[in-house]
Amino acid sequence: MPRWIHPDFDFRPLRPLFMCIISNTHVGKIPGVSAAGVTPEFTFYTPGADAELVEFNRIVTMPGLPETPGGCPTPGIITRAALSLTGVPALFVASGLDKKPAVPYVELGGAAGGDIRYTPGVPEAPEILEKAALLGRKVSALSDCIFIGESIAGGTTTALAVLRAIGYNGSVSSSFDSNPIELKSEIVRQALRRCDSEPGEFRDDIMRAIVEFGDPMIPCALGLLKGIGSTTRVVLSGGTQLAAVLLLAKRLGIEGDFSIATTKYVAEDPSASFRDIVEDSGWNYYVVDPGLERSRIPVIQAFTRGFVKEGVGAGGAALLAGILGVTQERLVEETDRVLMTVELPGCASKA
Amino acid sequence: MPRWIHPDFDFRPLRPLFMCIISNTHVGKIPGVSAAGVTPEFTFYTPGADAELVEFNRIVTMPGLPETPGGCPTPGIITRAALSLTGVPALFVASGLDKKPAVPYVELGGAAGGDIRYTPGVPEAPEILEKAALLGRKVSALSDCIFIGESIAGGTTTALAVLRAIGYNGSVSSSFDSNPIELKSEIVRQALRRCDSEPGEFRDDIMRAIVEFGDPMIPCALGLLKGIGSTTRVVLSGGTQLAAVLLLAKRLGIEGDFSIATTKYVAEDPSASFRDIVEDSGWNYYVVDPGLERSRIPVIQAFTRGFVKEGVGAGGAALLAGILGVTQERLVEETDRVLMTVELPGCASKA
Repeated sequence: MPRWIHPDFDFRPLRPLFMCIISNTHVGKIPGVSAAGVTPEFTFYTPGADAELVEFNRIVTMPGLPETPGGCPTPGIITRAALSLTGVPALFVASGLDKKPAVPYVELGGAAGGDIRYTPGVPEAPEILEKAALLGRKVSALSDCIFIGESIAGGTTTALAVLRAIGYNGSVSSSFDSNPIELKSEIVRQALRRCDSEPGEFRDDIMRAIVEFGDPMIPCALGLLKGIGSTTRVVLSGGTQLAAVLLLAKRLGIEGDFSIATTKYVAEDPSASFRDIVEDSGWNYYVVDPGLERSRIPVIQAFTRGFVKEGVGAGGAALLAGILGVTQERLVEETDRVLMTVELPGCASKA
Repeated sequence: MPRWIHPDFDFRPLRPLFMCIISNTHVGKIPGVSAAGVTPEFTFYTPGADAELVEFNRIVTMPGLPETPGGCPTPGIITRAALSLTGVPALFVASGLDKKPAVPYVELGGAAGGDIRYTPGVPEAPEILEKAALLGRKVSALSDCIFIGESIAGGTTTALAVLRAIGYNGSVSSSFDSNPIELKSEIVRQALRRCDSEPGEFRDDIMRAIVEFGDPMIPCALGLLKGIGSTTRVVLSGGTQLAAVLLLAKRLGIEGDFSIATTKYVAEDPSASFRDIVEDSGWNYYVVDPGLERSRIPVIQAFTRGFVKEGVGAGGAALLAGILGVTQERLVEETDRVLMTVELPGCASKA
C-alpha cells in the first residue's frame, strides 16, 4: 500500500466501480455559500460539467471549466486522472439535477433541492431513496467494490443543517479556503426557524430532517448504501457531506460493509469535524494525500493551501488509483495533464 | 440446456446484465404501423412504461399497461418474469426518448426519431453511437455476458427502411398478428423519395442510411456493441430490428462476441426474414420458446397466434432464465402472475 494512503486498504477489488452523484440545490446559489463555480449562478452547471470532464475531458454544457471564483479548478481533474490511469468505469447518477450533462448518466429524476431557508430541501427524499436502492441492488450484482462520490454545490451547508436538526454538533468543511461558517450557521438557523424547531428536534425522525433540511444527493447516497447492503464493499468518496451520510445511514439502520475515503485537505481541515463525524458513524475512514505540492500548476498547488479540498469523489478515486498501483507522482503528473488538455467550448484547451 | 431453447447456449454467465434500449420515433405514431400501444399517440409512452413494468411491476407514466389495440399485453411481462425469477439486474438506456420512465435509467439524450417520410430519422446518430460506446466500455468492465433488448414502437419500419437503403431485401416482423407490410413499404418508398434515392443507394454509407432512415435505438445498439467489443459476450435480445443491427454492425466493421436471441414467434414468422438477416450478419441466433400456450390467460396465449411476438428483450430474458435453471413452466406461471399483479395508475392490479 502506498505511503500516501492511511491506513492500509486491505482489499484488492477485481471489478471496481466509481459512482458519482450529481445534484443541484438552490442553497448553492446563495452568494458566499459555495466556491464550486465562478459565480453563484454557475454552481448549477458545475455537477454536469464535472461529469463531462471525468467522462470525456471535454466541457460541453458550461462556458468553461468548473472552478472557484479565484480560478482553482474542480477536484474532478484528480478523479479524471485517477480513472483514466486505471480504466475503472465511472457511473454518474443524477438526483434532483437541473442542468444535465452531455454524457451518459443514470437519471433518478426529481427537482433541484429547495432553498431550505424558505422551503423544504428535498420533499421527495423517500422516493429518491427507494429508486437509488434499486440502482444499488443492480450495481452490487456487478461490482465487488463501489466508490461513491458527489458533486453538489452548497451540499456542505445542507449537510450541516441536517446534522444540526438531528442534534449533532460537528462542523462541515468548505470549498473556500476560509470556511464561511457564520453564513452557513445563519442559513441553518433560518431553516430551523421556518420549521419552528430547535437543533436536535428531528433526532427521532431522520427522514423528516432530510426532507426539510437536506438536498437530493443525501437520499440518493443513502439509497445506494441501502441497496448495495452487505453484498459489496462500499467506499464513500468525499468529505464532511458524505461523512454525514454515513452517520445518517447509521441512524436509519442501514447496514453494510461501508467506509469513507477523503483527501488530507479535508481530513486536516481544522474548521471541520470529518474524523469525528465518521467515528460517530462507527465506520472506518481512509485519508489520501494527492501530493499536489508536486504539481507544476499554481492553481492546483493551491489545493494544498485549503482551496477546493475535495469533491467529485477525488479522494476515493485517488485511493483507488493507489491500490491499483498508480504512484502519487504519476497521479499528480496526470492531474496536471488533465487540466492542460481539457477541451473547453470554443477553444482547444485550458492551458 | 432446456429443450425450449435452440441451439444449446454453451456459456454460463457469472455476472449477467440485461440492458434494454428505450426510444421513440415519430414513425411509431403513423396510424397502423405499430401495435405497441392502444392508439398511435400512446406508442410514445410504451417504452417508458415497459421500463416501469420490468423494474417495479408498476405503471406510473401511462394510464394503463402497454398493450395492443386488441388488448394483448406488452412482451415486457415475460422480461419482468424472467428477471425477477433470476435476480439479473436490468439497465434501461434512453436514447431519443421523449416520454421518460419513473424508474432509474441511463440517459443518452437526443430527440425522438423523425418521421422518415418528411425528415431524417436520427440526425445525431454518430454522437449517439459514440456515447453508447462509452457506456458499452463501462458495462463490459463489470459483466461477463450482456443481453441487449429494445422497446421502440415503429422500430421495425425504420429497420426496414435502413435495410432497403443499404440494398438488403429481407423483410421485418410486426407486433400486429397481420404484418402491415404494404404500409411499411409505402413509408420506406416515401422516405427514399425524400432523399431522391433508390434502394441500395446507401450501401457504401451505412451511417448516412441510419441518419436518414433509422431511429435512435439503432445507433445506440451499435454503439453498445462497439464499446463492449470483444471483452464481453453480447446477446442481442429481439427480433428483426436487432437482427438488422447485427447486419449493420457487420457492415460498419464492429467486431466482438455477438449473437442474438429471439422468441419462436418471430423466428417462425413467415412474413419476416429473421434467420436470413442474422445469417447474413455471420453471427449465431438462439430461438426461445416461451411456451405461452401453457398460460391460463387468453391475451397471453394470443402470443402463440402471432400477436405481439417479441420486444423489451423478452426472448433474450427467457433465454437467460433458461440457462440459469428456470423451467419453461415456471416462466409461464410467473408471466401470468406478473400480468395479474401489475399495479396500474388508479387501481390495484390488472386482473
